[in-house]
Amino acid sequence: MRTSRLEAFSDGVLAIIITIMVLELRVPEEPTLHALAGSATGFLTYLLSFVYVGIYWSNHHHMFQVVERVNGGVLWGNLHLLFWLSLFPFTTAWVDESSFARTPVVVYGVNLLLAAIAYYSLQLAIFRVRGGAGLREALGRDGKGKASPFLYLTGIGLAFVAPWLGVLVFSLVAIMWLVPDRRVERYLDAREEAAQV
Amino acid sequence: MRTSRLEAFSDGVLAIIITIMVLELRVPEEPTLHALAGSATGFLTYLLSFVYVGIYWSNHHHMFQVVERVNGGVLWGNLHLLFWLSLFPFTTAWVDESSFARTPVVVYGVNLLLAAIAYYSLQLAIFRVRGGAGLREALGRDGKGKASPFLYLTGIGLAFVAPWLGVLVFSLVAIMWLVPDRRVERYLDAREEAAQV
Amino acid sequence: MRTSRLEAFSDGVLAIIITIMVLELRVPEEPTLHALAGSATGFLTYLLSFVYVGIYWSNHHHMFQVVERVNGGVLWGNLHLLFWLSLFPFTTAWVDESSFARTPVVVYGVNLLLAAIAYYSLQLAIFRVRGGAGLREALGRDGKGKASPFLYLTGIGLAFVAPWLGVLVFSLVAIMWLVPDRRVERYLDAREEAAQV
Amino acid sequence: MRTSRLEAFSDGVLAIIITIMVLELRVPEEPTLHALAGSATGFLTYLLSFVYVGIYWSNHHHMFQVVERVNGGVLWGNLHLLFWLSLFPFTTAWVDESSFARTPVVVYGVNLLLAAIAYYSLQLAIFRVRGGAGLREALGRDGKGKASPFLYLTGIGLAFVAPWLGVLVFSLVAIMWLVPDRRVERYLDAREEAAQV
Repeated sequence: MRTSRLEAFSDGVLAIIITIMVLELRVPEEPTLHALAGSATGFLTYLLSFVYVGIYWSNHHHMFQVVERVNGGVLWGNLHLLFWLSLFPFTTAWVDESSFARTPVVVYGVNLLLAAIAYYSLQLAIFRVRGGAGLREALGRDGKGKASPFLYLTGIGLAFVAPWLGVLVFSLVAIMWLVPDRRVERYLDAREEAAQV
Repeated sequence: MRTSRLEAFSDGVLAIIITIMVLELRVPEEPTLHALAGSATGFLTYLLSFVYVGIYWSNHHHMFQVVERVNGGVLWGNLHLLFWLSLFPFTTAWVDESSFARTPVVVYGVNLLLAAIAYYSLQLAIFRVRGGAGLREALGRDGKGKASPFLYLTGIGLAFVAPWLGVLVFSLVAIMWLVPDRRVERYLDAREEAAQV
Repeated sequence: MRTSRLEAFSDGVLAIIITIMVLELRVPEEPTLHALAGSATGFLTYLLSFVYVGIYWSNHHHMFQVVERVNGGVLWGNLHLLFWLSLFPFTTAWVDESSFARTPVVVYGVNLLLAAIAYYSLQLAIFRVRGGAGLREALGRDGKGKASPFLYLTGIGLAFVAPWLGVLVFSLVAIMWLVPDRRVERYLDAREEAAQV
Repeated sequence: MRTSRLEAFSDGVLAIIITIMVLELRVPEEPTLHALAGSATGFLTYLLSFVYVGIYWSNHHHMFQVVERVNGGVLWGNLHLLFWLSLFPFTTAWVDESSFARTPVVVYGVNLLLAAIAYYSLQLAIFRVRGGAGLREALGRDGKGKASPFLYLTGIGLAFVAPWLGVLVFSLVAIMWLVPDRRVERYLDAREEAAQV
């Protein structure tokens, strides 16, 4: 099975997730800056979730550049990941509407954690297909991927102390992923050079 | 007519169906785990419908790998299938909001049944196009495809006894389809090998 | 400018239009067949608009198979068509919520008329690009395309007498378009054969 | 990294933004032309935002035809642009629901301004990748691109005097961009001719 249609479907789902979250932003009832400020928590959670979906899309994109064919395991591993990502609009809206209350922030963190575990399982499934060993080589020690679940757990724990501490950790993890990661690009460049020699 | 644009359009529609169902999940009004538990039926019906759309996407993907060109009959057979699938967000939301009442569960089963019949008709339409005989060969006896409508009918009947029995049957059919099905992959591998000899 | 990305964008917009209309279907408040019957007008208007968007997608697909490159005029002619099609969810919902009242049915007919005019203008724009003469040849007299605006006008006029008469005409036009139309396919087949000679 | 998947994802997001804005149009409660007239401001703001998203899609399309590969900077520059565009449904709905009140019109202008700045930054990021110098050459002095932010600022300023003056300026900028712009097409044609010599 070629990866092209799997990528196209995932792109579609991710594009919709990232965009429909804006439908959850409530339009202010009064035409004043004061009323707009009431949407500020909605705006911040929207921004955070937008960045997370962007990170997943970008990493997903890299991951499937290495392999050319996938099997049923990868296909369902991918749908598993999309399932947890598709709950972002729901958990994001709850965090927003409760103005960063403890339980919604914890549930948001659990959502991030389950998406990270789904992503990790998908990587393991890809390692097993033809060409998948290349991805393992490209990722190297994969420090960020291994650290993320523990950082989410830390954020969930801190949210019990104070919700804003949890949100802070989740934001820092997003920033950590935003720092450019050229592992897969470097691997592909190296492979291309090797092919030319 | 090439299949590529038909596949792209179907991917788009399926990606939207699978994602907008999350908009029907009502955000809990209180920031408590107790309030979240009130969304549990919504979460379960969302999961079931997500898996069903995933199964249809996966099977759709396989089906169109065998043929390269389609005619108007296949095009409208495909839109017919998409029509019944597009009603999933509606019937899913009704099952959820009524907390698994009898009539909504029966209607959900009828929706599953009509989608299965539309899928079966689409297969028949594909058998008739150039290269379509290959799909018939690849599917073999097609036990799952033939059993599904009868299982849905059983589920609909049992829902009259107790709604949860119907939901149980619909869940078991989904699990049956999740078990990997390598018929089309095997057929394509065999054809590839034959071509190399 | 190649047509591939224009087709991909149009597929995306049409896929969303055809799918979000289901969000306008109101979930019945009671879990009874009687309450579901109250959604019947919504279901019928949804079906009619689904078929119309399907017809436009199918014709759009054929139209762009003939040409390979487009200019700015075609690009904006295409966006013009998508604009009127994007209002279908709005006018469809109004017809539904008013239970087929006169004004909403007339406005729905005007929407169909404006979409047909936009489609016709897009065809004229395509005739002028390189390869576009082939489309003119393929369409021949284009009886359906020329008759449709007058049929919509008739439907709008009859809706002033009785709304259901207007809806009847709009449904008959949809059925007329559903009858397979092999003009473009025949043209492409003929061109292919000529190329092989 | 090839541009194809970045273009596909952007097409998806832009297709959704342009289409979901119609969900913000409120269906009139009475089946009369008078009630429909109450939706007129919604219709006008929808049209303006539709044209703006269309312009961004068209320019985006041209921009990525010149380069073939992008890096992480371009990828995040693109997501940055999509973020501001994804807020259009929100700011458009606010302008509509407040019937062109001052603050919402100013905020809409700020949204246009931030999208324009994001677009400009994305151009700068593309100039730096391989083949990106071609885009700089193709754009030439880029009068429209440089004038737009100042025109938005003027519109924002005038909105403080009278909101409709701001809307007028934003509409004029849209019309300015609608006037065909053949710079990139001319550059590509010239390059093609040069390659044939």
